[in-house]
Amino acid sequence: MSGDADPQSTASRPDDQTGPETLTTAHGAGTAEMRDLLTETVVPRLALAGGTDGLGLTALDDGAVLPTDGDSLVVTTDSHVVDPPEFPGGDIGTLAVAGTVNDLAAMGVTEPLALTCGLVVEAGTPEPLIERVLDSMGRLAETVGTRIVTGDTKVVPAGDVDGVVVNTAGVGFVPPGAHLPTAGLSPGDRLLVTGPVGDHGVALLAEREGFEFATDIESDVAPVDDLVAAAREAGQVTAATDPTRGGLATALIELATASEVGIDLDGRAVPVADPTESAADVLGLDPLRVACEGRLVLGVAPEDAAAVRDAVRARSAGDEAALIGRAVDDHTGRVVVDTGIGERYLTEASGEQLPRIC
Amino acid sequence: MSGDADPQSTASRPDDQTGPETLTTAHGAGTAEMRDLLTETVVPRLALAGGTDGLGLTALDDGAVLPTDGDSLVVTTDSHVVDPPEFPGGDIGTLAVAGTVNDLAAMGVTEPLALTCGLVVEAGTPEPLIERVLDSMGRLAETVGTRIVTGDTKVVPAGDVDGVVVNTAGVGFVPPGAHLPTAGLSPGDRLLVTGPVGDHGVALLAEREGFEFATDIESDVAPVDDLVAAAREAGQVTAATDPTRGGLATALIELATASEVGIDLDGRAVPVADPTESAADVLGLDPLRVACEGRLVLGVAPEDAAAVRDAVRARSAGDEAALIGRAVDDHTGRVVVDTGIGERYLTEASGEQLPRIC
Repeated sequence: MSGDADPQSTASRPDDQTGPETLTTAHGAGTAEMRDLLTETVVPRLALAGGTDGLGLTALDDGAVLPTDGDSLVVTTDSHVVDPPEFPGGDIGTLAVAGTVNDLAAMGVTEPLALTCGLVVEAGTPEPLIERVLDSMGRLAETVGTRIVTGDTKVVPAGDVDGVVVNTAGVGFVPPGAHLPTAGLSPGDRLLVTGPVGDHGVALLAEREGFEFATDIESDVAPVDDLVAAAREAGQVTAATDPTRGGLATALIELATASEVGIDLDGRAVPVADPTESAADVLGLDPLRVACEGRLVLGVAPEDAAAVRDAVRARSAGDEAALIGRAVDDHTGRVVVDTGIGERYLTEASGEQLPRIC
Repeated sequence: MSGDADPQSTASRPDDQTGPETLTTAHGAGTAEMRDLLTETVVPRLALAGGTDGLGLTALDDGAVLPTDGDSLVVTTDSHVVDPPEFPGGDIGTLAVAGTVNDLAAMGVTEPLALTCGLVVEAGTPEPLIERVLDSMGRLAETVGTRIVTGDTKVVPAGDVDGVVVNTAGVGFVPPGAHLPTAGLSPGDRLLVTGPVGDHGVALLAEREGFEFATDIESDVAPVDDLVAAAREAGQVTAATDPTRGGLATALIELATASEVGIDLDGRAVPVADPTESAADVLGLDPLRVACEGRLVLGVAPEDAAAVRDAVRARSAGDEAALIGRAVDDHTGRVVVDTGIGERYLTEASGEQLPRIC
């Protein structure tokens, strides 16, 4: 028996085992891995029921457009898990309401009809925290002029969730054909961002890590429905998306991919607030790759670009709007950034590079 | 100094501290505490934006009814956290789709237009589990004849959630005034339950606890939209709700409270499957107080009661439907159950009596 290998020493140890693939946080935040998870695992299964081509799921858009006898019904949903649940400039409640209002706005719905609120709360959570979060949701809904009309609240044993998970879905109507797709860019269209990027992600990470030097940075979380309305009044808006997870980089790559165009980005034109730039530098973050929660990226017909920019700038929430690039008939699905000292492809964050900032 | 009390011995110990009130699992599952949390904490804050009276939130209905130019739009939402995520008869995916379809059905929507899917997945979750859950969702949506049109998927660090949290929202249209309220009972209306109660809760708890004797009990999770359609074709249905958390007891009390009537329940007429009754007995559960996920309670005009019951029984999912009681102009908001050996008030589960079975 001495010739036999000791099974204890040759058996796979737990950390060597290659069992079924597990999901990791690399799938977490606007990464290439997340895109693969969505296109290869989630969408094919949920879209079994068919009929969704070009309408939401299969287009990986911000929401779905459902034809009805009259206007089209737009539906969107978002789940939020945020650490910490309260941060400079907002909390998980403002994030949920603004996030859903903004997804609707990015679909062209500027008068959101109604929101839902699904709460999962961990037992042991202080009730005042939940009260503040709910107050934030109610107040922001009122500011936007929408209503939270139905909900679902569950309190689950400690450990089933960490703190509170908030899901909001939103519905609204647009006239037939008047929704704003992610896939609407044509070569020549200009790209507009409605304000400085990266504030939300940097503020949240600074708060989480207790970096005192960054305490003057506030999340940009805010509804942008009025900016979409102002932009569309001023000119032809062809495409829209909101740069949340993965930041501006992911948003631009999604626009380019969905629209089957390339994008040339003028890196020096992208607005980034000075404190955010400094803090991002210390934290090792790229402001173009962390989440915004109160910004939009719009595609605009070239002849209307200046008028649309000026109309957005006339609103306080858009006063730093900037034209940052253009769609081109080249390098389809890719974004070339001119940094001022050279050109490079803008890549999506991959794997664990991105701290989880939803 | 010896006269001073030792601060170490007189200070409140951690477990004596009465800091801010925290939420507990007593708020978890169709309990009186949950009702208080909803009416005192959640609804007043979310309904700040006003205009929801009688439409969903303030009515604590299964969903909200939004008037539009044509048909009314019904919106509903549900979050699911289930331990274990797969159980005899279904999984968290079937539960999410059936739950939302059934909330819509309980509002009178028998052709659900679309569902959303918000997933929050814990890093480390095996991908095959997620694939099976998604397959379940896609297949059940197809069976029902609806579509999952948009979604949101987040993978979060281990510990942020336990396994997977699924939120589904649903939308559908009903002709103006044709929705089914929880508040629609009038004295004299008969109460119909569409099948045996308690199977889901007992099956889930038996699975969780590893009780081998109960392995032949399957969850009743199933869509009931066709039962609502059959019932309404056969006669006047005045009210509806689905007995999920808190089971039949909570559903009846909600119907009585919302409708401002009393309910007299014939306890002997309530269908409970024998294996479920036996297992519930061993587990210390009351089948009337644990969740169903494929049943409805309908209020029916008395003259149509037999016809509606027969129409529901003609569908395989409703073949054990039973008339179990009537609405009365007495003991408003309360349910009196005749057990055959006496009468008593049916009480909602309170506090920790209920294992968490969503």
